[in-house]
Amino acid sequence: MTEMTRELIQKCLAEQATGAWSDDSELSAVASQLSRSSRAGSGQVAVASRGLPSRTAIIEMVESIRSVLFPEFFGFPAGSDRVLFQVGMALDHGMRLLREQLNIVLGYHQDQELATRALKEQCVRDISRGFMRNLCRVQSLLETDAQAALSGDPAATSAAEIALCYPGLFAMTNYRLAHELHRLGVPVISRIITEHAHSITGIDIHPGAQIGESFFIDHGTGVVIGETSIIGNRVRLYHGVTLGAKTFQKGEDGALVKGAPRHPIVEDDVVIYAGATVLGRITIGRGSVIGGNVWLTHSVPPGSVVTQGKPLEQHRASDGKI
Amino acid sequence: MTEMTRELIQKCLAEQATGAWSDDSELSAVASQLSRSSRAGSGQVAVASRGLPSRTAIIEMVESIRSVLFPEFFGFPAGSDRVLFQVGMALDHGMRLLREQLNIVLGYHQDQELATRALKEQCVRDISRGFMRNLCRVQSLLETDAQAALSGDPAATSAAEIALCYPGLFAMTNYRLAHELHRLGVPVISRIITEHAHSITGIDIHPGAQIGESFFIDHGTGVVIGETSIIGNRVRLYHGVTLGAKTFQKGEDGALVKGAPRHPIVEDDVVIYAGATVLGRITIGRGSVIGGNVWLTHSVPPGSVVTQGKPLEQHRASDGKI
Amino acid sequence: MTEMTRELIQKCLAEQATGAWSDDSELSAVASQLSRSSRAGSGQVAVASRGLPSRTAIIEMVESIRSVLFPEFFGFPAGSDRVLFQVGMALDHGMRLLREQLNIVLGYHQDQELATRALKEQCVRDISRGFMRNLCRVQSLLETDAQAALSGDPAATSAAEIALCYPGLFAMTNYRLAHELHRLGVPVISRIITEHAHSITGIDIHPGAQIGESFFIDHGTGVVIGETSIIGNRVRLYHGVTLGAKTFQKGEDGALVKGAPRHPIVEDDVVIYAGATVLGRITIGRGSVIGGNVWLTHSVPPGSVVTQGKPLEQHRASDGKI
Repeated sequence: MTEMTRELIQKCLAEQATGAWSDDSELSAVASQLSRSSRAGSGQVAVASRGLPSRTAIIEMVESIRSVLFPEFFGFPAGSDRVLFQVGMALDHGMRLLREQLNIVLGYHQDQELATRALKEQCVRDISRGFMRNLCRVQSLLETDAQAALSGDPAATSAAEIALCYPGLFAMTNYRLAHELHRLGVPVISRIITEHAHSITGIDIHPGAQIGESFFIDHGTGVVIGETSIIGNRVRLYHGVTLGAKTFQKGEDGALVKGAPRHPIVEDDVVIYAGATVLGRITIGRGSVIGGNVWLTHSVPPGSVVTQGKPLEQHRASDGKI
Repeated sequence: MTEMTRELIQKCLAEQATGAWSDDSELSAVASQLSRSSRAGSGQVAVASRGLPSRTAIIEMVESIRSVLFPEFFGFPAGSDRVLFQVGMALDHGMRLLREQLNIVLGYHQDQELATRALKEQCVRDISRGFMRNLCRVQSLLETDAQAALSGDPAATSAAEIALCYPGLFAMTNYRLAHELHRLGVPVISRIITEHAHSITGIDIHPGAQIGESFFIDHGTGVVIGETSIIGNRVRLYHGVTLGAKTFQKGEDGALVKGAPRHPIVEDDVVIYAGATVLGRITIGRGSVIGGNVWLTHSVPPGSVVTQGKPLEQHRASDGKI
Repeated sequence: MTEMTRELIQKCLAEQATGAWSDDSELSAVASQLSRSSRAGSGQVAVASRGLPSRTAIIEMVESIRSVLFPEFFGFPAGSDRVLFQVGMALDHGMRLLREQLNIVLGYHQDQELATRALKEQCVRDISRGFMRNLCRVQSLLETDAQAALSGDPAATSAAEIALCYPGLFAMTNYRLAHELHRLGVPVISRIITEHAHSITGIDIHPGAQIGESFFIDHGTGVVIGETSIIGNRVRLYHGVTLGAKTFQKGEDGALVKGAPRHPIVEDDVVIYAGATVLGRITIGRGSVIGGNVWLTHSVPPGSVVTQGKPLEQHRASDGKI
């Protein structure tokens, strides 16, 4: 493909040099180069010919589910009986959208078990049913997260403020929904759900991460929680905290080993301050406090306090340069 | 509530084990669980039955006001007389939206003084009037902020570029408007305004913070300025700078004390570089320079230069691991 | 202007004290103050009277071009002949939008060479033609970036996942398109394109930066790459990495010198971990590894490994304070 593309670029530049084209023939020439070169793209034709999930539909699905998880905060008349019907309608809408997208991605990740239409339909039904059945558990987990924000942030004034304003709760809702789909083996869709939250909040949580209850991310921008991270209960992270990988295993072919455990384990009741970078399959012992902007690549025992070395302080030069 | 939810989860899982449900009965069963459990939510029914503000309407209000603060940059024919009518129309639209939302949140934060409809209407009128009357002051403050960007960033080429492209000015516009509402005692709405800017720009400024004139945030992503921060004039922050709290006061009941002074005081002419984390009710003396990625939790005198300790440098191992 | 504004504020406050206005007269009074004061704004009238580019139109243009660069991932039936017509239509639409916006900004940056209508039209045609002719090169560069993500991130499972989910590729697409316009001397539009990606992804790349092939930004939130940065091939950055300026040259008039080289040079095969702040016209030698949260303001030779000094570790006090 790169071969072909180089060739096209040569042609492109040559014609540019001669400046021969008219605007119309030029347009169609470039269009054909773009479509040809990408048609030749690495296995992408195969992918596309089987269809791709719709980000728009998936986001609409998530918003429907979000509204049934927090009905009071999405215009439903809580306390009345009508809320039941409205929740039912929103849930039904969300589940329809999910089934449509499952049909696409399962087709696209087709393999033996899905060889026949019947088997695929069975699979879509089982996944969507399993997902729906876990929504009440997701709801109660999110209530512990909202409570952790209310009791953990002096600036939080009400449950309404948290539900309407707090990016951490928005991101955790997307993550907890995506994690359920991830556990059910659904590809791509779960990642689109968490990346949508990443775009809105700056909080990047991989659907594969395991996170306990009463989890609070304050402010959140720049938080990264990697695929194989394991986080206990009552953990609090501030913005810019990274739970990442340090080195990657390579197989004999030199390609990266996918899915190997490579992110931190954070035990119960740990607090990690803004901008701390914690890398590798290490363990932060229960109840530890990690200070801001620390670079930590080794395990620390329970009850540890880790802070950055003392900064250098001097008096400002007249020109204010540092 | 958690009690009840646990119970529901048991039921949920039990039925999952038997796999008894048909799709329809299943949907309505889950819907009723979700609406019931959330109807039982901690005081949330009460909240909801009084109504919640509309994020959409609040954002539309802010965009109307933004357009009258910078008419030249929002399609109004500056220099002509028509600009006056267009500014008037946009201002009128924004103020109508604000009054509607005030009616909702003041209802929702109902207390003695607002017991009667008449008193509430008076309150809505006074707040919106006070807000509108301060818009010209907000406009001139924002002009000092735009000027600080133009003279503080070598990459800035024109006032138009700053008004159209710079996230710092976008976030400061939302903050300065939200701060006016905050000063007038308006709940929730002010926070929705700053969190909208947070989502768009990655800059998280609490409406309660106090910020002087000619304030410039460059790049901005990951900046956090806490509720009780006090910032002087001509201060410059880069992206990822945190002015946060370190420890929280707890009352006798063990609950956090809300609103206590806990964020830094930054005096005039201070520069704080990218990723510095400054925590606690400390003072950064006038004219100081704080280097990037510093973790600072104590006051520094005027004219200080604070930088991170020297990094370790070694030669790269053959496998490139660090 | 500040003079005039102060005067207006006095008037504003005085009237506030008397509380004389009725709501209507008040509205029009504030409207006239806002439009008057901003009409007097520093050189902004001049700008506005010549028109400003439309952010909405520019974003629509970029999305059209994005769809022709990755047709398989934007609903085109790759592998069929129809893709050619669809790519052609999308390309034509994008180019029309670009020409419209060029007409606006070139008018607005009017100078001698553009004095006559004919010359301006010639200029618009040459720029848009030059831009279109380079799209196939941009496409092949982006394919190297996508490949770098696939081979550099153990969590990446497919080309589709990267095209649909990865913020780094989204930001690089906007940057590479904006860079082409920047090279052709187009003002403002190129910055609007990169700032749009900044808002969506938290990745802030100036259109003027020079970036080689196979460039991978993982996670991305908080990355800043300044105007005069130069980045080699096969470089990998994590989120929160800054390639910024440390001090700014001032001219004799005390104003900042625009465009002077002030950002780092990063040679081939360098990896920079999360949150590292690298400032000034320094060189990171080929194959170096820079650890997370490092503050680096001097050059390092090829093959260097730079990490933050060892953190302080102690046992947690009973009150958990740090």
